Amino acid sequence: MGCVSELGSSATGGLTDGVAVELLLARAYLNRVAEPANIPVWKLVRDHGPLEAARMVRAREGGDDVLAATAARHDSADPEADLSAAQRHGLRFVVPESPDWPHFAFAALERTGARRLVQWRDEGRRVRVGSGEPLPPLALWVRGDADPTTLGTRSVGIVGARAATAYGEHVAAELAFTLARRDVSVVSGGAYGIDAAAHRAALSAEGTTVLVSAGGLDRPYPPGNATLFERVGESGLLVSESPPGCAPHRPRFLTRNRLIAAFSTGVVVVEAAARSGATNTAGHARTLGRPVMAVPGPVTSAMSVGCHELLRRDLDPALLVTSAADVLPIVGGLSEVVDGSAGVTARAPDRRADPRAELDQLDPTARRVFEGLTARRFARPDEIAARSGVGPLEVIRALPTLDLAGLVETSDAGYRVHERLRRRQPI
Amino acid sequence: MGCVSELGSSATGGLTDGVAVELLLARAYLNRVAEPANIPVWKLVRDHGPLEAARMVRAREGGDDVLAATAARHDSADPEADLSAAQRHGLRFVVPESPDWPHFAFAALERTGARRLVQWRDEGRRVRVGSGEPLPPLALWVRGDADPTTLGTRSVGIVGARAATAYGEHVAAELAFTLARRDVSVVSGGAYGIDAAAHRAALSAEGTTVLVSAGGLDRPYPPGNATLFERVGESGLLVSESPPGCAPHRPRFLTRNRLIAAFSTGVVVVEAAARSGATNTAGHARTLGRPVMAVPGPVTSAMSVGCHELLRRDLDPALLVTSAADVLPIVGGLSEVVDGSAGVTARAPDRRADPRAELDQLDPTARRVFEGLTARRFARPDEIAARSGVGPLEVIRALPTLDLAGLVETSDAGYRVHERLRRRQPI
Repeated sequence: MGCVSELGSSATGGLTDGVAVELLLARAYLNRVAEPANIPVWKLVRDHGPLEAARMVRAREGGDDVLAATAARHDSADPEADLSAAQRHGLRFVVPESPDWPHFAFAALERTGARRLVQWRDEGRRVRVGSGEPLPPLALWVRGDADPTTLGTRSVGIVGARAATAYGEHVAAELAFTLARRDVSVVSGGAYGIDAAAHRAALSAEGTTVLVSAGGLDRPYPPGNATLFERVGESGLLVSESPPGCAPHRPRFLTRNRLIAAFSTGVVVVEAAARSGATNTAGHARTLGRPVMAVPGPVTSAMSVGCHELLRRDLDPALLVTSAADVLPIVGGLSEVVDGSAGVTARAPDRRADPRAELDQLDPTARRVFEGLTARRFARPDEIAARSGVGPLEVIRALPTLDLAGLVETSDAGYRVHERLRRRQPI
Repeated sequence: MGCVSELGSSATGGLTDGVAVELLLARAYLNRVAEPANIPVWKLVRDHGPLEAARMVRAREGGDDVLAATAARHDSADPEADLSAAQRHGLRFVVPESPDWPHFAFAALERTGARRLVQWRDEGRRVRVGSGEPLPPLALWVRGDADPTTLGTRSVGIVGARAATAYGEHVAAELAFTLARRDVSVVSGGAYGIDAAAHRAALSAEGTTVLVSAGGLDRPYPPGNATLFERVGESGLLVSESPPGCAPHRPRFLTRNRLIAAFSTGVVVVEAAARSGATNTAGHARTLGRPVMAVPGPVTSAMSVGCHELLRRDLDPALLVTSAADVLPIVGGLSEVVDGSAGVTARAPDRRADPRAELDQLDPTARRVFEGLTARRFARPDEIAARSGVGPLEVIRALPTLDLAGLVETSDAGYRVHERLRRRQPI
C-alpha cells in the first residue's frame, strides 16, 4: 500500500478525473484480484460498495464463493503498481464513479447481471462454464480520444474470423468504411482478419473505431497488430477490462466479447466458422437485446458456416445484411430511417386530429408497433420489437409512419409515445 | 375435323392410354386456342367439361371473357395437326382423364385455382398482369420414362439464373447430384446456367430429372441445350403445357414456372438476380404451400441478390440451405428425418400406454406440432407448420419424436394422427 502517496492526486488526475484515490485503488484491486465477470465478486461490490468489498477480500471475508474466486491473487494483487503501469503506458483508469464511465452501454449489462444473479442463486450458485457471464465490468483501462459515454449509441460491432478470406475482409472493410463515414463508431476486437480489416477501414474513413482487447493494453495481442493498436489508441479508443501486464488467455476473450456487444448498437458477423468467437459475441448481443446481423457468403466456404448458422436459427435468427445501407437503419438513429422514406417534408401531420381516430387509421403492423412503445421512457427498435412481437425490420419500417403521423417522439435513446398523446390520455 | 379418323385408336394409343379420341381432340383444341392458365377458359372447362367447352369456344359462346381469350386462334387451332406433330416427335398427350395425369402435383393448383376464381369474380374479372395464374393446366405434352403421377413427391425444384456464376453452377450440381442419388427427382427449366447444371448432375447421378419447357417440346429452347433436352427425354421427363411448334415467349415462362413449383415437393433457388424468373418460381411455390429454400452467396455477387431477398422477406422468408443434407429432410419423406436421429430401432414405443399421458409428456413444441396434425387426412410438414404456428424446421425436427412415440402415421402424402389414437378418442 506504500505507493498510494507516490501516485498522489496530480498523478491520478491523469488517470481519472474527480474520483477519490481510495476508490481507484479499491477498484483496481478488485479488477486485478479476480477474473473479469465473476458473479460472487460482482455481487460483493454491488452489496457493499467497492471500498468495503476490497477490504473484505483482503481480509478473506465475503464467503466461500468470493474466497475461491480471489484465492490465487488476493495477496499478490498490487493496485498501486497497476495504476503506475497504466500511467507509464498512457492509459486512463475508468470506473463507474468516473464521469466518462459508459453507463449507457452498460445499462443492458446491469439488467442482465441482475437477472443472472437471481438465476445463480436459484441454481445453487453454479457458474456457467465456457462463456462470459453477462455482468458489467468493475473497471476499464482505456486509451484514446473517443468519449466512452457515447458507446452503445450509433455504433456497430463488426466481428468475425481471424482466418478470414479476402471476401470477408473486403466486406468488413466496406461496411466499416461506409458506416464510419456516416458517423457510426466501429467496435471490434484486436485480432487479425475481420477485426483488423474493420478498424483499418474505419481509420482510413477518419471515423471513430473502438478496439476492445482481451489482455492488458500494454501488451497488444497479436503482437503483429501493435501498430494498429497504436493508431486506434491515437484517434479512436482502446479498451480493456484487464489490467496492464495481463496476458490474453481464452476465458478473457469470451468475457471480452460481452463488452464488444455492450458497446455496439448492433453487431454484424461478417465471416465466422461454426461455434466461433464471433458467434459467441453474437450470443452476448442477443442476451443484451442488441440486434444481431450476419453477412452471408459462399456455402462452399468454411468461413461462412457460422454466419449461415446465425441466419437459420429457429429462435432469434440474425438479420441478413448485404451492405452498409442495410446496417445503417438498424444501428443509426431515426434520421437514417426517415431519410430513406419519400415525402417526409411534404406531409405534415394534422396535429388537431383526434389521436384515437389517427390510431384507427394505422395498418395493423404499425398499430402493434405503436402499442409496443412506452409512454415516458425512450425505447430502441429492438426493444419495441420484443414488446410488440413485430419483427425488428418491420418495426424499423413502421416507425417513420408513426413519426410522420406525429404519434412518436424520438431521441438518441429511441422512441416513445408523443407527448401530445400522453397529455390527453394515458396509453 | 378430317384428321380424326387418320389418328385412329391405334395412333392415339401411343399418345395417351384409354382416353376417348374426342376428349383428346377437345383438350388439344382448348390447350391450343388460349394461352395457358387463362381463368375464363379454365372456368369454362370446369363448369361444362372439355367436350362442351371446346364446342362452345368454336361456336363463339361462353361469354366475352372466353371470346377475348380465344379470339386470336379459335378458328386456326388445329388439334389433329397438334396430335400428329406430337406423334412425329415422340410426345405423349396427357390429360386429366389419363391414368398418368399428375393429380398429386396438381392438387395444390386445383385448390389455388378455385380460390383465385372466387377472387377473380369479386374483383370484377380482372386478370393479374405479369405473372402466371395459379391454375392447373388443361393438358400436358410429355416425353420420357419417368412417371408423371409421382411428381410432387420426393422431388426438388432447383432453379436459378441463366447467367449463373461458377459458384452457382457448382452448388446446383452438388445439390442435384446428391439428391438424385437419394432418389429425389430434380425439377427445373431448360435454360443455361442453374437449370442445365442441375439436370446434367441429376443425369450423371443416374437419377430422375424433369425438364419443364416453356415452349413446344419439338423446339428446345435455348437451341444450345437441344442435346440436354434429348438426354432428359430419354431417361427423365420432358414436360410442356405448350403444343408442338409453340415458341417460348415471356408470358409462357411465367406460367411455366407454376408447373415447376407444382412438380416440386420444395423449391431451392440457387442463384438469382433481383426479381428474376427464379424468384417468380419461388412465389408460385409459396402460393402452393411448397417450402421455398435459398442458397446464400457472396453479397458482392449480383447473382445472389435474389436469394438474399428471399431469405430476408418479412413474410414467409425462404429457408437457408447450404447443402443437400439441409434439403433432404424438407423434400424427402419421414425416413429421411428419422434416419438422421439416433436410437430409432432401440426405443420401441409402448403401445399400451394411455395416449393422454403420452401427449402430456411431449415438450411444448412437439405438443403444438401434434395439435397441428389432422385426424384423417395426411398433411405435409409445411401445412402442419402453418396449422400449428411452429416453424417448418422445428416441425421436421419434432415429427420423428412423435413417430417414435407412436403418435403419428406416415405416408408419402405426409403425416396424420395415429389410428390407435383416433379410434379411442376424437382429437
